[in-house]
Amino acid sequence: MTLPHPNTDQISLPIVLGVLGDPTRLAIVRYLASKQGVPLNCSQFLDFGSKTNLSYHLAKLREAGVTRAEVVGTNRMITLRRADLDARFPGLLDGVIAAAGDDPALPAVGGHDIEVHARP
Amino acid sequence: MTLPHPNTDQISLPIVLGVLGDPTRLAIVRYLASKQGVPLNCSQFLDFGSKTNLSYHLAKLREAGVTRAEVVGTNRMITLRRADLDARFPGLLDGVIAAAGDDPALPAVGGHDIEVHARP
Repeated sequence: MTLPHPNTDQISLPIVLGVLGDPTRLAIVRYLASKQGVPLNCSQFLDFGSKTNLSYHLAKLREAGVTRAEVVGTNRMITLRRADLDARFPGLLDGVIAAAGDDPALPAVGGHDIEVHARP
Repeated sequence: MTLPHPNTDQISLPIVLGVLGDPTRLAIVRYLASKQGVPLNCSQFLDFGSKTNLSYHLAKLREAGVTRAEVVGTNRMITLRRADLDARFPGLLDGVIAAAGDDPALPAVGGHDIEVHARP
């Protein structure tokens, strides 16, 4: 099973910005960026919201072309489409991630700073 | 008469991104950026939409802290809050403007390229 993703040239700037205009989705993107390309499964975002909310937010990010979701068994492994976004809008994602980097208004993992990578 | 604007430290990243997630508002920001700080009045954005729509979009940009609107007589003079946004989120606005710079999907002035500054 493969989920639909826009091609790189179909990624739209207003849609990407609109999708990033949400604290939970920004927190997801910030967390993915902190993992530097390591895929995360949905359950690793549970600090950011309920399963239902996360499904919604992850679908919005995927449909906008911000993330890629690979179905692996019963899991979905999520990565940031950093290379595609950098190709389409050079510097944009870095600017967003830098701006989100120290924003205390965004949800964080385990109530800790997002830089804390260790998980139980 | 003074219109309400958020202070620099009240400008919120998700709100700014959400407000920029709209083709008309991105076109307004791109046009303001191309004017390099010269204030524009509302009528100079009429290529981007009707007066009613523009009032709505300009209010959203002002309330998010993206633009400043000064009431001068019966006019409102609009500028981009570039210094405030750069102080709050370094590099973000540059990334957005660069990404919007050559996006043919955004409304343009007089149907010309946004680089054309002369107006009748």
